[in-house]
Amino acid sequence: MSIDVDFLVHPRWLIPVEPDRLVLTQHSIAVRDGGIVDILPQADARARYRAATDYELPDHALIPGLVNLHTHAPMSLMRGLADDLPLARWLREVIWPAEARHVSPSFVRDGTLLAAHEMLRGGITTCNDMYFFPGDEAEVLAEAGMRAVIGLIVLDFPSAWANDPDDYLRRGLAVRDKWHGHPRIAFSIAPHAPYSVSDAGLERAAYFAAELDLPLHIHIHETADEIATSLASHGVRPLARLERLGLLGPGLTAVHAVHTSEHDLALLAHHGCSVAHCPGSNMKLASGIAPLPAMLRHGINIGLGTDSAASNNRLDLFQEMRQCALLAKVGSLDATAAPAHTVLRMATLGGARALGLDGAIGSLEIGKRADFCAVAFDSPSASPCFDPISHLIYVCGREQVTHVWVDGEIRVQNGEVLLQTNDNELLALVSLWQTRLV
Amino acid sequence: MSIDVDFLVHPRWLIPVEPDRLVLTQHSIAVRDGGIVDILPQADARARYRAATDYELPDHALIPGLVNLHTHAPMSLMRGLADDLPLARWLREVIWPAEARHVSPSFVRDGTLLAAHEMLRGGITTCNDMYFFPGDEAEVLAEAGMRAVIGLIVLDFPSAWANDPDDYLRRGLAVRDKWHGHPRIAFSIAPHAPYSVSDAGLERAAYFAAELDLPLHIHIHETADEIATSLASHGVRPLARLERLGLLGPGLTAVHAVHTSEHDLALLAHHGCSVAHCPGSNMKLASGIAPLPAMLRHGINIGLGTDSAASNNRLDLFQEMRQCALLAKVGSLDATAAPAHTVLRMATLGGARALGLDGAIGSLEIGKRADFCAVAFDSPSASPCFDPISHLIYVCGREQVTHVWVDGEIRVQNGEVLLQTNDNELLALVSLWQTRLV
Repeated sequence: MSIDVDFLVHPRWLIPVEPDRLVLTQHSIAVRDGGIVDILPQADARARYRAATDYELPDHALIPGLVNLHTHAPMSLMRGLADDLPLARWLREVIWPAEARHVSPSFVRDGTLLAAHEMLRGGITTCNDMYFFPGDEAEVLAEAGMRAVIGLIVLDFPSAWANDPDDYLRRGLAVRDKWHGHPRIAFSIAPHAPYSVSDAGLERAAYFAAELDLPLHIHIHETADEIATSLASHGVRPLARLERLGLLGPGLTAVHAVHTSEHDLALLAHHGCSVAHCPGSNMKLASGIAPLPAMLRHGINIGLGTDSAASNNRLDLFQEMRQCALLAKVGSLDATAAPAHTVLRMATLGGARALGLDGAIGSLEIGKRADFCAVAFDSPSASPCFDPISHLIYVCGREQVTHVWVDGEIRVQNGEVLLQTNDNELLALVSLWQTRLV
Repeated sequence: MSIDVDFLVHPRWLIPVEPDRLVLTQHSIAVRDGGIVDILPQADARARYRAATDYELPDHALIPGLVNLHTHAPMSLMRGLADDLPLARWLREVIWPAEARHVSPSFVRDGTLLAAHEMLRGGITTCNDMYFFPGDEAEVLAEAGMRAVIGLIVLDFPSAWANDPDDYLRRGLAVRDKWHGHPRIAFSIAPHAPYSVSDAGLERAAYFAAELDLPLHIHIHETADEIATSLASHGVRPLARLERLGLLGPGLTAVHAVHTSEHDLALLAHHGCSVAHCPGSNMKLASGIAPLPAMLRHGINIGLGTDSAASNNRLDLFQEMRQCALLAKVGSLDATAAPAHTVLRMATLGGARALGLDGAIGSLEIGKRADFCAVAFDSPSASPCFDPISHLIYVCGREQVTHVWVDGEIRVQNGEVLLQTNDNELLALVSLWQTRLV
């Protein structure tokens, strides 16, 4: 009397993230129609279910797919184009001029494909993106099989994609209308930053986000200079300005939030905003150390982001998880800050909640979608293992990810990313862009 | 009229580290009797030399073997035994009790083998170690084919290895005598720390280091508490105490040096001491941020260390290189601090110089020993590459290391570590210790 399911996964450890700190050993997960239908002891699973495929993973931990809460996928083509520079010079002298010359639908497509390959390879099943040509991004991410929330960027200045805030919104919302109802591709309104969007543009962004029930995605309080400029130009700090313009709310993801006072954090907490913490990017660009322990004390929901490969230079949430824990500890001089299970939660359920997707993904629970990945603990460099959760944060690298499923579809198998474009074709595309960019 | 050599390596990029910032493309390196006999354009190399083996590495960077300037290899058996704890509790509640129960020659042998596997796999060819039972370490590291400087530990309190400072020195120096003249295994005198060795023990350590021309290896200025304790007990900061006792000099490697004032740094610079910077350990234990830019300004020689896998939890110098660059930037709020080439130099020639081995290793130069490793840049996650040196620091992970040679012997080939103990045997040994430790 077995029940048919599409597949069963039998890992050594199953870490659902919710409830917190739980580690199930010798349990299995059953998937049908892209959803998790059961989590139960392995012996019971084998007795109760008949699967088209059984994945035996005897040295692996199964965890929810990682949620990259802030990235600019197409910028992977500019990985390492300019390092060891501060944010303002990096943007003005290298990145913006390169974008002005090269950004196009094909740049966005090829860069997004490169990023999708890297993210999937490292166990990232969902990304929260912000860039130009969102329709091209959507097509590539949909075909790659990722889950994504694609930011409809809003800027005061023109680009190859649009001319002014109204034009960005008009074009962006047309893309959103076309994709409305897709099971894995959703959209947010993404005003770039307080220093690059006027009050009018920010108000329009807030209006459409409210009207269409879309999340908001914005860089905010990244550098000390940003705060000083806002005080000089607007008389208030950027977060206070966003509040005045009606942007703060549970749908807003505040990216970076490095320079945040107790008052700023109270504001974020009061409005139920989330933070996309990007420790690697904040360190590399010398932006500063976000006050993570204070954010946690305020009860602010936090997810983790890689930022782009142009500033990071890896789209690697395993690295960001470790960095998050280590930076919080040294930044607060408290070795108990940001313990492993808290950080794993940020990189999964925290990111999902920021995107309004915590009903569907972010933890391994019956009824949620089958977004998860397996991490092999069987190499000498990953041995011994005394605590699998701690191991994921402090020992593991993304190279240990062996299998990744999104919405019940296998996207990485035995470390190989299953894209329609094979690795050699992808490398050839990247090589062409490299030649053009230099 | 070809000249016979043992092997030729033909990488795409050859980064000798000395001279600084140089990247040679399409060059080859010729090795005979474990030494580098030539570095020249590939076409010339193929014409001039006849090699028993040619290694074709068309997508790889060849760099000097990494020098791990501070570790405790056998502690790899305690990888992740206790995380998210401050240094004092971590040591007193977990590590020291575990060591009191378990440290023995077989613990040291198995742990050192595990560490050697991990270090070689990640391109580390030399380690500067400090632990108990140095003779057992020496045997394992010699057989694994690594180069090592093994610290003869000195402590006030007894352990399974020795009873008091004189006993530690007597036993340690007997090991050193036995190994004297070995081509890859050397020794240092390693008083553990200012808080664990009395004045008399430190003076004896300094005496033997001077008498036998051995380097000194000591943890110093790691935490704020260490400084306060020294001021209370000795009336001076630890480095001033070491100066008074005659320990400071070009042979001394000051491990951590996190809490260092301008005066402390002037002292280190004046005596020509080196610093073993361990950014990952300093972050995880919340010790603080070492003032790297100030050290560089003082002209202090700096190498990088992983510390032990019990506190890190990886013996991974690729991760430490990246961490070093990122932490220096965010710690000084200067994105130009610790640029990539400076960090690569620390992890190679800086470490070699600290150990007095810069005449033999640390850079790819004719006449030096053949210690080097190849890093593959051919995966999508490592593409594109605009600057190979920057790529090594900000993009690469140790999993990209494919080949490692030490003293002209190949120790890693196509990612496989060539030890006499195979991976499954090693994992079985580790598993036994894991059971005992919990």
